[in-house]
Amino acid sequence: ISLLSKTRVEFRLAVVQLQVSSVKPDNLSRARRLVTEAARQGSQVVLLPECFNSPYGTSFFSEYAENIPGESSQVLSEAARENKVYLVGGSIPEEDGGKFYNTCTVFGPDGNLIVKHRKVSIDITCLKPVTFCKVGVGICYDMRFAELAQLYSRKGCQLLVYPGAFNMTTGPAHWELLQRGRALDNQVYVATASPARDETASYVAWGHSTVVNPWGEVISKAGAEETVIYADIDLQYLADIRQQIPITTQRRDDLYTVTSVQEGSS
Amino acid sequence: ISLLSKTRVEFRLAVVQLQVSSVKPDNLSRARRLVTEAARQGSQVVLLPECFNSPYGTSFFSEYAENIPGESSQVLSEAARENKVYLVGGSIPEEDGGKFYNTCTVFGPDGNLIVKHRKVSIDITCLKPVTFCKVGVGICYDMRFAELAQLYSRKGCQLLVYPGAFNMTTGPAHWELLQRGRALDNQVYVATASPARDETASYVAWGHSTVVNPWGEVISKAGAEETVIYADIDLQYLADIRQQIPITTQRRDDLYTVTSVQEGSS
Repeated sequence: ISLLSKTRVEFRLAVVQLQVSSVKPDNLSRARRLVTEAARQGSQVVLLPECFNSPYGTSFFSEYAENIPGESSQVLSEAARENKVYLVGGSIPEEDGGKFYNTCTVFGPDGNLIVKHRKVSIDITCLKPVTFCKVGVGICYDMRFAELAQLYSRKGCQLLVYPGAFNMTTGPAHWELLQRGRALDNQVYVATASPARDETASYVAWGHSTVVNPWGEVISKAGAEETVIYADIDLQYLADIRQQIPITTQRRDDLYTVTSVQEGSS
Repeated sequence: ISLLSKTRVEFRLAVVQLQVSSVKPDNLSRARRLVTEAARQGSQVVLLPECFNSPYGTSFFSEYAENIPGESSQVLSEAARENKVYLVGGSIPEEDGGKFYNTCTVFGPDGNLIVKHRKVSIDITCLKPVTFCKVGVGICYDMRFAELAQLYSRKGCQLLVYPGAFNMTTGPAHWELLQRGRALDNQVYVATASPARDETASYVAWGHSTVVNPWGEVISKAGAEETVIYADIDLQYLADIRQQIPITTQRRDDLYTVTSVQEGSS
C-alpha cells in the first residue's frame, strides 16, 4: 500500500473574517496580510467577506466603487500570486458604465482573474487546489434563495461560497440555519465570510463566518472578532455522503425540476 | 375597536406522537383516543405519524396493508367526524390492485375523505379550521427533497405536514434541520409527526415530532415518548414574515425556477 499513490481529494479552505474600516487602503493591506497568514497555514483556497474594502451598504457605493481591473482587484491578484492560492475576493462595490454592482472576483494562484460574479447572477468557477473542485458563488442575500444553490449543485458544484453580512437580527436567527440547509439539501460544502463585527459601524455585521460540511454539520466557525478560520474540504467525504443518502440520484425529476431560465434547463 | 370583527387567522394544530405496536387494533384505538384528547384541547387540525397502524418498514406491508376505504380509514373518518376536526391520518400501508403504497389520507370534520396522498406525489388540501389554510402533504423521506416543498409553497401552501420516522442516526443529525430549512426557505409552517420511540422495534424511530414557524423557529417539540404536542398556526404572522423578508416576491424567476413536470409549470 502506497499512500503516495492515493489521489488527494482534500484541500484546506481559509475564511478571512476581516475587520472592515472606512479607510480603503487599510482594508486592502489588512486583507493582504491575512491572506498571507492563511497561506502559511496551508490553505489553498482563501475566501474574503462581502464588501471587504468598504463600509457595508449601497450608500457607500458611489464613494468606494471602482472599476475591475482597478486598485482593489490589483491587490487581490497580487495576493493570490504571491501566496499561490485561489483567492475568492469576497465582494467590492464595482462601477461599470455609470452603474454600480456588488461584485466578487476570483483569482488563481497565477494571479489571473478566473471569474467575475455580480450579485444575483450564476457563476461557477472550477478550482484545482489539489483535485478539481467546482465552486458556486453567491453574495449574502443570495443565500436565502434555495434555487440558486440547487442550480449550482446540479451543475456539479461541490463547494458554495457566500461572502455576506447578516445583521444582528437575521444573523442569530438565520445565518447558520441557511448554510446548514443549503449544505444538507445539496450535499455540498458551504462557506460564508462575514466582515468582523464593528459596533460603531452604520451596519453592524453578525460575523460568525462558518464552514458547513455536506452532512449539514458546522465544521468551522468564527466568533464576532477579526480572525481566520480553516476547514479541510474533503471531496471523497462528499462522495460518500451522496452514496449514503442518494437524494441526488433519487430526485424525482419526473415530478419537479429546478431550471436555469437563461439556459432552458439545468 | 371590536375584537369580534377581526377575522381569526389562527388555529390550533395537534401532532400525535403515537406509540405504535404490532397490534393494529390497539394502534387504531389508541390513535382514536389521542385524537379525541387533542380535540378537547381545542385543536382543529390533528396530525398522525407515518405508519401509525403498523410497525415501520416495507417488510410489514404485506401483513398490514389494506384497501382505502378500509378498516383504518374508517376509524380515521369516524374520529374526524366525532371530534369535528381535520384529521391528517399520517400514513398506512395501502394495497391497491396488487401493489403496495405508503399512503396518507386526510378527513374533514364531516368525516369525508378530502385527499389521498401516496408517498412522492404532489397533493395539496385546502382546510378551513378557521380561515382557509392550504396544506401540502409529504411523507418522511420526501422531506429531504427541497423541490417538493418549493412547489407546495409556490402553489400557495402555508403549512406543510410530514408524517415520518427518522432513525437514531438521521434523526439527531437532520430531522429538525430539514424542517427548519423548509420552513425558512419557503416561509411556511412545517409540522412533522413521528411514531414514539420503541427501543424494542425492528426500526427505532427518533420521535421528536416538531412544529416550526415561518421564521424557522421550533415552536413545539415532543421528546421520544408518546405524547400530543400543540401549536397555534397564525396565518397573519406568516403574511407578516413574507412582507418583512420578501423572498417570495423577489425570487429571480428570470434566472431560475422550480417547476412541476406534470403540469409544465408551477
